[in-house]
Amino acid sequence: MAGGGDLKVLGVWTSPFAIRVRVVLNLKGLPYEYAEEDLGNKSALLVGSNPVHKKVPVLIHGGRAVNESQIIVQYIDEVWPAGAGGRPAVLPSDPYERAMARFWAAFVDDKVGSAWTGMLFKCKNEEERAEAVARAEAALETLEGAFKECSKGKPFFGGDGIGLVDVVLGGYLGWFLVVNRIIGRRLIDPARTPLLAGWEDRFRATEAVKGVVPDDVDKMLVFLQKLRAM
Amino acid sequence: MAGGGDLKVLGVWTSPFAIRVRVVLNLKGLPYEYAEEDLGNKSALLVGSNPVHKKVPVLIHGGRAVNESQIIVQYIDEVWPAGAGGRPAVLPSDPYERAMARFWAAFVDDKVGSAWTGMLFKCKNEEERAEAVARAEAALETLEGAFKECSKGKPFFGGDGIGLVDVVLGGYLGWFLVVNRIIGRRLIDPARTPLLAGWEDRFRATEAVKGVVPDDVDKMLVFLQKLRAM
Repeated sequence: MAGGGDLKVLGVWTSPFAIRVRVVLNLKGLPYEYAEEDLGNKSALLVGSNPVHKKVPVLIHGGRAVNESQIIVQYIDEVWPAGAGGRPAVLPSDPYERAMARFWAAFVDDKVGSAWTGMLFKCKNEEERAEAVARAEAALETLEGAFKECSKGKPFFGGDGIGLVDVVLGGYLGWFLVVNRIIGRRLIDPARTPLLAGWEDRFRATEAVKGVVPDDVDKMLVFLQKLRAM
Repeated sequence: MAGGGDLKVLGVWTSPFAIRVRVVLNLKGLPYEYAEEDLGNKSALLVGSNPVHKKVPVLIHGGRAVNESQIIVQYIDEVWPAGAGGRPAVLPSDPYERAMARFWAAFVDDKVGSAWTGMLFKCKNEEERAEAVARAEAALETLEGAFKECSKGKPFFGGDGIGLVDVVLGGYLGWFLVVNRIIGRRLIDPARTPLLAGWEDRFRATEAVKGVVPDDVDKMLVFLQKLRAM
């Protein structure tokens, strides 16, 4: 079990939700098979593994499917907890700090997540995009305060290492590059949210993240056009 | 700490989200102080304890606030785990079963929760209400299958005792009585969803639930009018 040889992830390379699962598997040092899904033609394995939502990511472990990215991340952290072989924890061990991490992770998917779809997928014109960008920036300002509270002066929301809030927010960073290109400035503004801007740089530079959070903006823009046409 | 003498819940008597927290505290045998909030004039304690969402429920434990009902339920289960004094578990101990419980709990708040607001608060006419009722019934049919899977022939989603999915769905049962009155039939239909209908009766009859899940439909209808006017 610890080897992770029986782990498979069904994902989409741009999906913030699939990205966070892959980052956590990398952090834990667990090898896994990755299968890229085509959203226009979902595999029978995806539909069969997540019949309720038919969405990526799915983690298949020992033949059983786990769905919903934040639930998958917690599952991985519970099956392969901190300790053995220097494996890091993703959630804090203290119940109050766990509750805080879950609170901010839920906040990210609620506020940043809805602004993300607003900025890129649902906006019908530049006015609607600007409104969604403003909502994203407001959420990021709130997260600037959360970062101070959670990190306690350390590099990540999770403290010394990447934790739940880091991977949940970090999953969106590829799409933030696309937004940056479109709006002509950095969404995580070093002037307005300096702590988060430093965090973004550190997160991107982490070994477990490299090659998982996309950074090819031109390729993402092509993908965006395809998604919007669907 | 185990006595729970330093526990306070900020809630609203009709709130599905506050109800689930109170049921779990009762299940755990933890005494707590309950403070009823006025949604039209929220207390400084509520606003200060949940500055991000300003919503009930809030659990205050040892002077620290925990927000978001599903997160509070997990917090309680982690601080006061199963064992001592016959205290029951709310989440299963097996990581895969925990993931399943979290998945179905999230499904309830996503699908049943949005149908709940549609049936009672957001509908502008009977046509919109009927559409929301249909969505609720579709979600309940999916949950009928989930009940089979989770309960394994036992009385609750949590098995022999009330678990996470039970309290999350059970929190809505007071409002279901109101819907039943309005639509003139039982939303959890014994013909379409017989397992859930049996579950509803068992849940309502549980000691930890009595007096927490409201059953005074006339009083709830008055509350509904007040909420809709706000």
